[in-house]
Amino acid sequence: MVQTAVMGVSGYAGMELARLLLRHPSLAGSRPLFLGRAEGIPEPLAAVHPQLMDNNGTGFGPGALAIEPFSWELLQSRGVKFLFLATPHEQSREWVPEALDHGLRVIDLSGAWRLAERANRAVYKFSNEGSPIAAQVQTKAIYGMPELHRDEIRKADLAANPGCYATSIILALKPLIAAGWVDLDRGVVCDAKSGVSGAGKAPSAKTHFMHAADNLSAYGLFSHRHTGELLEQLDLAPEQIVFTPHLLPIPRGILSTIYVWLTDLHQPSDVEALYRSFFAESPLVRVFPAGQLPQIQYSANTNYCDIGFHLADDGRRCVIVSCLDNLLKGAAGQAVQNFNLMCGFKEAEGLI
Amino acid sequence: MVQTAVMGVSGYAGMELARLLLRHPSLAGSRPLFLGRAEGIPEPLAAVHPQLMDNNGTGFGPGALAIEPFSWELLQSRGVKFLFLATPHEQSREWVPEALDHGLRVIDLSGAWRLAERANRAVYKFSNEGSPIAAQVQTKAIYGMPELHRDEIRKADLAANPGCYATSIILALKPLIAAGWVDLDRGVVCDAKSGVSGAGKAPSAKTHFMHAADNLSAYGLFSHRHTGELLEQLDLAPEQIVFTPHLLPIPRGILSTIYVWLTDLHQPSDVEALYRSFFAESPLVRVFPAGQLPQIQYSANTNYCDIGFHLADDGRRCVIVSCLDNLLKGAAGQAVQNFNLMCGFKEAEGLI
Amino acid sequence: MVQTAVMGVSGYAGMELARLLLRHPSLAGSRPLFLGRAEGIPEPLAAVHPQLMDNNGTGFGPGALAIEPFSWELLQSRGVKFLFLATPHEQSREWVPEALDHGLRVIDLSGAWRLAERANRAVYKFSNEGSPIAAQVQTKAIYGMPELHRDEIRKADLAANPGCYATSIILALKPLIAAGWVDLDRGVVCDAKSGVSGAGKAPSAKTHFMHAADNLSAYGLFSHRHTGELLEQLDLAPEQIVFTPHLLPIPRGILSTIYVWLTDLHQPSDVEALYRSFFAESPLVRVFPAGQLPQIQYSANTNYCDIGFHLADDGRRCVIVSCLDNLLKGAAGQAVQNFNLMCGFKEAEGLI
Amino acid sequence: MVQTAVMGVSGYAGMELARLLLRHPSLAGSRPLFLGRAEGIPEPLAAVHPQLMDNNGTGFGPGALAIEPFSWELLQSRGVKFLFLATPHEQSREWVPEALDHGLRVIDLSGAWRLAERANRAVYKFSNEGSPIAAQVQTKAIYGMPELHRDEIRKADLAANPGCYATSIILALKPLIAAGWVDLDRGVVCDAKSGVSGAGKAPSAKTHFMHAADNLSAYGLFSHRHTGELLEQLDLAPEQIVFTPHLLPIPRGILSTIYVWLTDLHQPSDVEALYRSFFAESPLVRVFPAGQLPQIQYSANTNYCDIGFHLADDGRRCVIVSCLDNLLKGAAGQAVQNFNLMCGFKEAEGLI
Repeated sequence: MVQTAVMGVSGYAGMELARLLLRHPSLAGSRPLFLGRAEGIPEPLAAVHPQLMDNNGTGFGPGALAIEPFSWELLQSRGVKFLFLATPHEQSREWVPEALDHGLRVIDLSGAWRLAERANRAVYKFSNEGSPIAAQVQTKAIYGMPELHRDEIRKADLAANPGCYATSIILALKPLIAAGWVDLDRGVVCDAKSGVSGAGKAPSAKTHFMHAADNLSAYGLFSHRHTGELLEQLDLAPEQIVFTPHLLPIPRGILSTIYVWLTDLHQPSDVEALYRSFFAESPLVRVFPAGQLPQIQYSANTNYCDIGFHLADDGRRCVIVSCLDNLLKGAAGQAVQNFNLMCGFKEAEGLI
Repeated sequence: MVQTAVMGVSGYAGMELARLLLRHPSLAGSRPLFLGRAEGIPEPLAAVHPQLMDNNGTGFGPGALAIEPFSWELLQSRGVKFLFLATPHEQSREWVPEALDHGLRVIDLSGAWRLAERANRAVYKFSNEGSPIAAQVQTKAIYGMPELHRDEIRKADLAANPGCYATSIILALKPLIAAGWVDLDRGVVCDAKSGVSGAGKAPSAKTHFMHAADNLSAYGLFSHRHTGELLEQLDLAPEQIVFTPHLLPIPRGILSTIYVWLTDLHQPSDVEALYRSFFAESPLVRVFPAGQLPQIQYSANTNYCDIGFHLADDGRRCVIVSCLDNLLKGAAGQAVQNFNLMCGFKEAEGLI
Repeated sequence: MVQTAVMGVSGYAGMELARLLLRHPSLAGSRPLFLGRAEGIPEPLAAVHPQLMDNNGTGFGPGALAIEPFSWELLQSRGVKFLFLATPHEQSREWVPEALDHGLRVIDLSGAWRLAERANRAVYKFSNEGSPIAAQVQTKAIYGMPELHRDEIRKADLAANPGCYATSIILALKPLIAAGWVDLDRGVVCDAKSGVSGAGKAPSAKTHFMHAADNLSAYGLFSHRHTGELLEQLDLAPEQIVFTPHLLPIPRGILSTIYVWLTDLHQPSDVEALYRSFFAESPLVRVFPAGQLPQIQYSANTNYCDIGFHLADDGRRCVIVSCLDNLLKGAAGQAVQNFNLMCGFKEAEGLI
Repeated sequence: MVQTAVMGVSGYAGMELARLLLRHPSLAGSRPLFLGRAEGIPEPLAAVHPQLMDNNGTGFGPGALAIEPFSWELLQSRGVKFLFLATPHEQSREWVPEALDHGLRVIDLSGAWRLAERANRAVYKFSNEGSPIAAQVQTKAIYGMPELHRDEIRKADLAANPGCYATSIILALKPLIAAGWVDLDRGVVCDAKSGVSGAGKAPSAKTHFMHAADNLSAYGLFSHRHTGELLEQLDLAPEQIVFTPHLLPIPRGILSTIYVWLTDLHQPSDVEALYRSFFAESPLVRVFPAGQLPQIQYSANTNYCDIGFHLADDGRRCVIVSCLDNLLKGAAGQAVQNFNLMCGFKEAEGLI
C-alpha cells in the first residue's frame, strides 16, 4: 500500500490532485493525507472544495476528510512515501530538499526544479539560487514529462512536473523537431491560449470576472516563465522561437497554435505517421487524423493531450494545434502519471 | 454651462458616468472634472479605462483627460455645481454634508442616503449614524427614482440614487401595488439575478472568474442591503416580501422575476394597461406587450428598464419580469437622469 | 454479465450515458451497444464525440467503438437486456412498447412515460395518446426517482427517468411537503435556472451562442412540460405552484430557488434534521448545513443533487436551493442510478 | 438631407447599422429605410431587435420603425441615395449592379466586391463570376478601408467594405510592410481570434452555445475567404503568410496576434513612431504606447481599431496585437465611416 500526501490542496491543481488520488484504484485502501499551513487547525476538505463532498466520509461530519496542519512528523507518523507539492515556487524550493532528506519521493508541480540552466531559471528569482544544496537537488530533478523521459521518471526521487503551456507546446513540437523536419532558421511561432484557472486562485485584477469575461488579452510577451522549458526540452535558441500566451474567457483548457516551416516537402500522411510513431507507447496523447484539429472541449476534464495539424498545399507551412486541460494533463493529471511510473503502476491508471 | 465633477471614476459605475457625461449634448462645451485620491497625482483617464481613450484629447498624450486629486478648492476653482459620488457608502456619508455646505448639488450613487428609516439603515452600520448633521442631511435626501419622485428630484440638492436591484424590483411592482391589485397577505417573491459588475471592482473570491463563470449562486438571503428600499418605496412589511439575489455569470445586467397573487381576477390587457398608464410619462421604462418578456440582452448597454409580465389562466398568479443594466439604469444612467431633472434638461437627454 | 444498449447516443445525455457505462465497474467485461438510425451505417463514436476517444479502442481506428444502425435483431443477437432510450418523446412512445415486447427492461430518459394523468400529458400531444397499448404500458411505468420510489424501481421493467427541472424541485420540496410543513394555501414558488444543454443539441435561435451568452431569459411560463411531474409527485393542485424556468448562460447545471411559507414556526435545525432523515439512505443527495447553500459549480460534472435552505428569522419564510447537473443527476446519472437498482447493483455504483 | 436604406437589417451587422444610422447627427431629420424580403409584409423593427425599441417611435406601436418589403420602386419613391447591403455574398453580387443602374451609391458589407483578382475570388464561387457586367462593376469597386483608400472612397459609387479579420490584420501590418521593415522571406504569421457574432445569425452546430462556450477552436486553415484581402492589400504572395482564425467564446470582438521578423534592428520607439505617423490622420485607429497591448474589451462596442506591439530585445522579433469590434470597425462602423467620406461628412461623425 502506497501512502501519499498532498501539500497545497486548497488551490485548483490541488483540488484536482485530491480528486484523482481519492479515486485512484491502487490507492483504494489508503487515504491521501491533505496538508495545509503548519500553524492552522484541521478543517474539512469539503469546506474548501464543496465539490469533493460526498456522503461517505468526505463531507462535513465526523470522519470527514480534513486538511491537516503540515509537519514532517505527521508525514512520518502516517508512513507517507510520496509527496505531491502544489505549492508556490519559493515554497517548493525550500521544502523539496527537506523532503528528500526525509526519504520522501516528490512530485513537485511548481516551477522550482524544472530548469537545468541557471540562465533559464533567472526569471524566477529564486531566493536560494546560489545555494549548493539547491544545486545538488537540481541535478536529481527529472523533467516530469513521461512521453520524453519515461525511464528516468520511473527511478526518480524528484519529478519536476512541467508547466501547462510547456506541456502543450513541447508535446506538439518534439516529434517534428527531433526528426529534423523543422526549418529552425525561419523560427517557430507558438501562440497559446489558456483558461483562467492557469492564473491561480488568488483574486487579482487579472482574474476578476469583469476583466477575463468577454475578453482576450495577450500577456508575458518574450518573458513568460515557461519559455525556458521550451528551450531546454526542444534544444532551441531564444531567437528561434516566439511564445505568446493569452488569457481565454473560460475556466480551463489550453489550445496552442504552433507555426513551423518544414525543411523539406512532406505529405500530410508522412507527418501523421511521424506523430503516431512518436506517441505509439503514450496512452495519454491522442493524435488526430491529418487535417482534423483538436478543440479545447475535447480534452477539458480529461488527462489527455490532443494533437492535430494542418499542412498547407505547398507542403512547407505546417500549423500544429495542441490541446489539454491545464489542471489535468497540464498539472495534476501529469503529476499522477509521473506518480504511476514512479510506483510501477500502469502509466494511465486512474487517468482514463 | 453646467460644470460637473465625478468622484470615484475608477470604478465600473464611475466609468459609465464618465462615458455618459463626456457625450452629454448639454455638456458639450464643458469638461467633467474627474477626481481621485486627495494624496494622488493626476493620471490619464485612459490609463484606468483604456476603453475611454480617443484620439481627441482623452488619450495618453498632453491635453488628455486626467483623474485629478480631490480637494474642495479644486472643485470651487473649476466652478463645479454638480457632484456625482460613485464612492463607497462610508465616504458618501462623510462627503455629502461637506459638499452641501460648499453649495454643491449632489447625486450620490452609494447607499448612504437612500433610507429614511433608521431600522432599515442598520444593515449598513454607518459610523456617523447618530450624528445630528447626518440626520439633517437625511431629511434633504430625495430617493432618486424619477418615475416615482420626478418633481421632488427637480428641486433636490441631494438625490440618493437607488440601488440596482431595488430599481428593477420597485419599478416592476409599484404600478400593481399602488393600484391595490396585489394580495400582500400571500407575500411577494422577488428572485433577482445580477451580473458580476454589481459586485464591484475590488478583486475577491466572489468576483474571481473561476467562482463566477459556469456558476450561479444565491447570496444575501433575508439580509441584502437593498431590502430596505423595497420596504420604504413599496410600503411593505418585512414579512410580506422575500428577496433573493443571485450572482449571474455575465458582466452586466439584472433580471428580476417577481411573483404575486392578484386580489381580483384580471385580464392580461388590464394589467398591461395599468403599466402603460403608470409609465406614460417615463421615457426610460419600456413596457412589453402582455405575455412578452424582456431579457437581459435587450436592456444591457442601454439606460432603459424593461418590464413585462405573464398572467396565469386563473387570472391570479402573475409573474413580472424586469430587466435593466445595473451600471446604467441601475446606477450611472439613472444618476444622469436625475441630473437632467435637477438641471431642467429633458429627462432622457444623452441617455437614448 | 449485463449487456446494455443506448439509443440516442449522439445527444448530450447520450454522450454522458456512454461515458458512464463505459466506465461502470460492473460492466467492465461487456461493451455497451451504441445505436443510431436504422438506415445508417456504423460510424466511430469518436467522430460524434471526440471527447470519448481514447487510445484503447474508442478512437477512429479498427476496433474502435462505433454507433451501429438500430434493429431489434441486432439487440437480440448481442444479448441486450437493458435498453436506455435518450430519444425524443415521440420515439420513446413508439419504441418502449416494442422493447417490452422483446423482453427488454427499459430506462427511458424522455418525457414519454413519466405522467400518470392524461391531463398532465396533454402538453406533449403524443400521437398515440389514445392507444390501449400505450395505456397499458403507462401502468407499468415507474417514475424513476430512486429517492422516492426505490423499491418499485428495483422490480420495474420500465423506468421513466424524471425531467431535469422536476428532479431538482421534487427532491427539494418532498421532505417538507410530505411532513406537512408547507402552507400550501400561500403557494409554492419555484424559480429555476438551467444551463443550455437542457435545450438539446439541435441548433436553434434559442441555443445560438449570441442569444444565450451574456443573457438570462425566462420561458415556458405556466406551461413547461415538467409541471405535471411536480403536481403528481408532490400532490399539488395547479393553483398551488408557480414554476418559472430560465435559460442560464452556462453549459450545464440547474439551480432552483424555491420559496415556501411554513405552517408552523420552526428552527433551522429542525428543517435540517428533516432533510437529513429523509435522505439518510440516499447516496446521491447531499444535504447542506442550515444556512449554507449549494451552487451550480459544486454539483456540475457530478451525479449528486445538492440541497440547502435558509429560514428567515420569522421562522416561516423558507428558501430552499437545489442544484444538480442536468445531464447527470438530471438525466444520464439518474438513469444509471435506476439501472443499478434494476440490476441489484449498489445504487451509486459508477456514479461517485 | 441624405436618405439611406439598409438591406439585411435583421442580421447582427444590420442591427448595428440601424443603431448607428438612427443616431447619426447628420441624419437627424431623415429616417433610414429598413428593408426585408420582397415578398414579406412590414414588421416592427423592435420585433426583430427588441434592443432597438424605444418610446419615441421605434417600439411596437403605430408609427414604430418597420422593416418594409424591398423593391426598387420603394427606394426611389423615398428618395434613397445611399444603399447599405448587409446581405449574403450572392445577393450582393446580384443587387449591386442593379443598384448602380438605379443611380444609387452603395456600401456593400459582403465579400462580393472586395477582391480585384479572380484567383482570390475563386473561394467564393460566385455564380456570375464570368459575367461582363460583374467584371465592369468590379472595376468601380473601391476597397472600403479609409485608412488606406480615403480619397478614392470619397468619390466612389461602390465601397466594398472589408472583412472583419482583414481589417484587423491589414491595419496592423500595413505601416510596417509599406515601410519595408518586414522580412517577408521569413513569413508573416497571423493568429486571429473572433467572437461568435462573426459566424452570423443562422443557427448551426458551430454557433450552438454548447460548441462555442468553454471552448476554442481553429478553423478555415489555409482557406479562409479573407486571405485574398490580405494578399491584395499587403502585396503578399500566398507562401509569405499564414492566417489562422479561431472561434472565441465571446459575443463580439477580434484580437489578431501577428508575428514578423524585422529586416533591420529597431528600437520600440521607432516602431511606435512609424505607426503614429501612418495613422496621424485616422480618427478611428488608436495606437498604443510601445509595449502596451490592446485587449478585446477596450474596443468592443466602439468603432475603433486598437493597435499595439511588443518588440523583443533582439530588435527583430516583433509581435503586433490588433483589436476591433467585428460588428463595428469590422463591419457596420466601417461602413458608416465610408458613408461619411462619400457624403463629405467628418470621417468619424456618429462613430465616437
